[in-house]
Amino acid sequence: MIDGPVRPRRSRLRPVGPDRVRITGGFWAELQERNRDAILPHIAEWLDRTGWLANFANGPAERRGREFSDSEIYKFLEALAWELGREENPKLQEIYDKSVKAVAAAQKTDGYLSTRFGREGQEPRWSDLEWGHELYCIGHLIQAAVARARTGHPGDLLVQVAQKAADLVCDTFGADGIASMDGHPVIEPALVELYRVTGEQRYLDQARLFLDRRGTRILPDIEFGRAYWQDEVPVRDNTVFHGHAVRAVYLAAGAIDLADETGDEELLDAVTRQWRRTVARRVYVTGGIGSRHQDEAFGEDFVLPPDRAYSETCASVGSIMVAWRLLLAHGDPAAADLIERTLFNVVATSPAADGKAFFYANTLHRRAIGPLPDQDRPNPRPTATVRAPWYEVSCCPTNVSRTLASVAGYVATEDDDGLQLHQYVPGTVAGRVTVTTRYPADGEIHIRVDEDADEPWSLSLRVPAWAGDGATLTVGGHTWEVEPGYVTERRRWRRGDEVVLCLPVEPRFTHPDPRVDAIRGCVAVERGPLVYALESVDVPGADSVDEIRIDPEHAPVLRGGQVLVRARRLTLSDEDWPYAAAPPRPAAEDLGEVPLIPYHTWANRGPSTMRVWLPTLC
Amino acid sequence: MIDGPVRPRRSRLRPVGPDRVRITGGFWAELQERNRDAILPHIAEWLDRTGWLANFANGPAERRGREFSDSEIYKFLEALAWELGREENPKLQEIYDKSVKAVAAAQKTDGYLSTRFGREGQEPRWSDLEWGHELYCIGHLIQAAVARARTGHPGDLLVQVAQKAADLVCDTFGADGIASMDGHPVIEPALVELYRVTGEQRYLDQARLFLDRRGTRILPDIEFGRAYWQDEVPVRDNTVFHGHAVRAVYLAAGAIDLADETGDEELLDAVTRQWRRTVARRVYVTGGIGSRHQDEAFGEDFVLPPDRAYSETCASVGSIMVAWRLLLAHGDPAAADLIERTLFNVVATSPAADGKAFFYANTLHRRAIGPLPDQDRPNPRPTATVRAPWYEVSCCPTNVSRTLASVAGYVATEDDDGLQLHQYVPGTVAGRVTVTTRYPADGEIHIRVDEDADEPWSLSLRVPAWAGDGATLTVGGHTWEVEPGYVTERRRWRRGDEVVLCLPVEPRFTHPDPRVDAIRGCVAVERGPLVYALESVDVPGADSVDEIRIDPEHAPVLRGGQVLVRARRLTLSDEDWPYAAAPPRPAAEDLGEVPLIPYHTWANRGPSTMRVWLPTLC
Repeated sequence: MIDGPVRPRRSRLRPVGPDRVRITGGFWAELQERNRDAILPHIAEWLDRTGWLANFANGPAERRGREFSDSEIYKFLEALAWELGREENPKLQEIYDKSVKAVAAAQKTDGYLSTRFGREGQEPRWSDLEWGHELYCIGHLIQAAVARARTGHPGDLLVQVAQKAADLVCDTFGADGIASMDGHPVIEPALVELYRVTGEQRYLDQARLFLDRRGTRILPDIEFGRAYWQDEVPVRDNTVFHGHAVRAVYLAAGAIDLADETGDEELLDAVTRQWRRTVARRVYVTGGIGSRHQDEAFGEDFVLPPDRAYSETCASVGSIMVAWRLLLAHGDPAAADLIERTLFNVVATSPAADGKAFFYANTLHRRAIGPLPDQDRPNPRPTATVRAPWYEVSCCPTNVSRTLASVAGYVATEDDDGLQLHQYVPGTVAGRVTVTTRYPADGEIHIRVDEDADEPWSLSLRVPAWAGDGATLTVGGHTWEVEPGYVTERRRWRRGDEVVLCLPVEPRFTHPDPRVDAIRGCVAVERGPLVYALESVDVPGADSVDEIRIDPEHAPVLRGGQVLVRARRLTLSDEDWPYAAAPPRPAAEDLGEVPLIPYHTWANRGPSTMRVWLPTLC
Repeated sequence: MIDGPVRPRRSRLRPVGPDRVRITGGFWAELQERNRDAILPHIAEWLDRTGWLANFANGPAERRGREFSDSEIYKFLEALAWELGREENPKLQEIYDKSVKAVAAAQKTDGYLSTRFGREGQEPRWSDLEWGHELYCIGHLIQAAVARARTGHPGDLLVQVAQKAADLVCDTFGADGIASMDGHPVIEPALVELYRVTGEQRYLDQARLFLDRRGTRILPDIEFGRAYWQDEVPVRDNTVFHGHAVRAVYLAAGAIDLADETGDEELLDAVTRQWRRTVARRVYVTGGIGSRHQDEAFGEDFVLPPDRAYSETCASVGSIMVAWRLLLAHGDPAAADLIERTLFNVVATSPAADGKAFFYANTLHRRAIGPLPDQDRPNPRPTATVRAPWYEVSCCPTNVSRTLASVAGYVATEDDDGLQLHQYVPGTVAGRVTVTTRYPADGEIHIRVDEDADEPWSLSLRVPAWAGDGATLTVGGHTWEVEPGYVTERRRWRRGDEVVLCLPVEPRFTHPDPRVDAIRGCVAVERGPLVYALESVDVPGADSVDEIRIDPEHAPVLRGGQVLVRARRLTLSDEDWPYAAAPPRPAAEDLGEVPLIPYHTWANRGPSTMRVWLPTLC
């Protein structure tokens, strides 16, 4: 049996695995092809160039890369596992087989696996739990193995390797073992998933031990505080996601998995409340999370500066993991809304059009053309003017790749009553319906039923929150307006029945909450699920977009395939104290209409400046 | 001969040293007393408690503190030197003597001095120039020695120690020596100043070597870029201050000193241009600099978020060092304006009312009451809800102290034509005038001439840029309006002649440049040189000040000694996606008038939230 990226036991909705959703075209098919043809080969090349794969064969003296470089091989293997589950590919299969062999050969007989610790001349095993990332790496190893098991290969060598490593972790960190945990969560959801795949209770128990220890202040206080490693308060006592964003969402995913498998409603409620508060106060309009560069962390409520947005690609991948689990648990449309927003505006933004470079941080405002990344060596910085081919900390490319390869898994769910469509992609879903659409380029989504039913069943379609004005459903010749949330039609469906959902995808202005200080007096432009941006290459004669002001009285229009806004350019003095007794009244030049582009396409036309939030005022 | 903190050779203006300015009361006298009675003893106590002073006597195994902890002893000695130059104080003298003895005893016979390197079990000398801070510490040692020499003790033991260390630096890093420099500038201005004190040409030559090397990419590229240690471009090729803010301004101070002593006009022009551009684009309304927490660095132009302001106290001390040098070089009133603004709103903000705790970072907006600093151990974080008694990196308390002890040195200058008053303090200046004023509490400044002159001379008074509307000068019964800049009266002054400068110190709104995105739609309130703030303790029933909106149609008023603004409080929903199709129109409750406080006094009444920039819009 093949299954999705998550397979909870008790949840309200059951995932329709990626094997049962076939994406036949459109936005995500293009990205999946780019992943297969460009991104995965690019990652393979850099794992070779950097020596991070060779670390498994080499002696400790030759080891290269940061302490967590093993995890990149594992995330790459996870991406390959999902991709090979999607369709056969001899070339990628060969890379997969060779890499798994190298990993397996490096495993000690007792199951220990790390290129960074425990060998002659290296620090001993488990000697640096805060920063060493040993358990973090094993967590990603397990996730890769789960992907392989769920795509038809439960006895794969990688699954054996992961189980041996997981067994050692349970032996070492069990109730009588080392009473600590990794500085970077991820093994928590991984162990629950391995339990789901194998039925081994001890993996679930170990995940619970790790979860229960977290927040009891085992790890040291550092400049960033213990919140950095989520060790300030227990998960169930927290009120909002905080600290290092990737750590926060990976841990939350594990907490939801554990709550599901153990029936711990209190834990599920706690994480759900935290998530709701986070979505209301700590998420960028793109879906990105984490506004602090310093500690790659969530800011305080409403601290969402577009120009110093961190919005790490990996944090968004983790945010989708959390939202998907909450969607399964509660059927909350806000979770599916956030997944869509994050996929289109962060996950799709990170890779370059050619699939050979990636954003690590996804700023919403580039003020100045800064350094260009070196093409021949890993970029030492998470930020660059354009996407970089690789990073010294290169967590994001492999995270994008594994998400793209498994994206079909986020499309639909089932319950005893029927089928729920959460994301709209052209293709077939669960053998039950075929979807035809150009979404998000237009808002018309045709769903044709593919089987005759003896009993009535419910087809539920998500109407996104942004589609509050003018969404319609047509069934059997009748059309009516529908509200955001899930619209459900329960019928004795016949093969060939058609449902048409029309979502209003005219471009629209979006206004921020008054407490988001950094974007007061600004609007964003959105169209369907896509956030738009103004890029300097579209403004004649300007390197900077910061003098542009938008006329909020003229709604954005779609013309000739372009989204246009009415703009003017301020004339501002260059050298003076920037605070004055009088309100600024600068002269302005009317620019007429200027085009915006989907945010995910920016920085593909050479160095540029860009902004998502466009001021309407001086 | 006693002299000020800087004594350039060729500059347009000559400093009037702190021995020739006697502050007899008012704002700065109070702070100088607080420095003498509370801050200096507090620092002495913590240098004992932390063992940082004992490091000089202890063996390497007992060494405590960070790699730069020696510098805190040196900055403390500099503060003591200025304070003892101001007035005798047996208790502080004893601390000074004891500390200098400890430092001198730790010096190697060849002049090397560091508790962190070069001993048994420590890394060798000069083995970590990037992060080791050896030359940085020696730079502060030299500055302390210069202070001592300039306050009447040119033969002091500390001066001998510093010269021996400086000689070793010249021997080691000279033209034929190690062709590198410290990761943290400060030895550059220190060496020029030591040259000024001793006349030793080699110190000037060594400063030039260090300056010329900087920017040639000797130090490694790191995540923050080489701009972090000012090694991305040569000082003379830069266009704006960038990178780590303290490093930037300490280096700029050295560059101006060097330019002055060598007649290098091109270098002086370059730094002047950088400074002007920085003042126009990268300075907070408080005078604070550095908006990035991550690398304690300048942000890009106009990236000045109040809530993530770093505005390190030490960076402001360095900014004053730069502005003072430029004031001497050019007589530019903008430099004196910035010194005044920075003294009142950053240097005076850092120390608590009791002198026993300090802000390291000086945020302009505290959104939430966060962690309270531990009272019994150095704070691991530069930010805290209230001021912390000490820090693991405790550069700021000693920097505040040395600045307060020498603040009289920034009051006045002379040239061949007369006397220039840049700051207004009650007291006597250069034996030529006596100033009587309650400034900044009110705007009336009386200057009485104290000597009969045979020849006419010029008395120049700074009219701050903010006093553009209604400043008047009264001389000999005549009163007229004066413009910002220097107003100069050239007369054959007689003892008892009086000049009265009236500066308009009604509270006023201040509006930001349209490019400072983070404060669009906001006003600040200023009164004279003081920036004001809204603190939550003054708003009944609110922990947060973020729902408060100010009515910009009602100018702030001064009533009963309080500055009042008209305010309302928004009612905002708590849990929802914070981006909407419609502009926000929240309900609001009229609060009537609410009081603001001088920013420098905030956080003295328990944990609170605060903001300087007050939104007028939703």
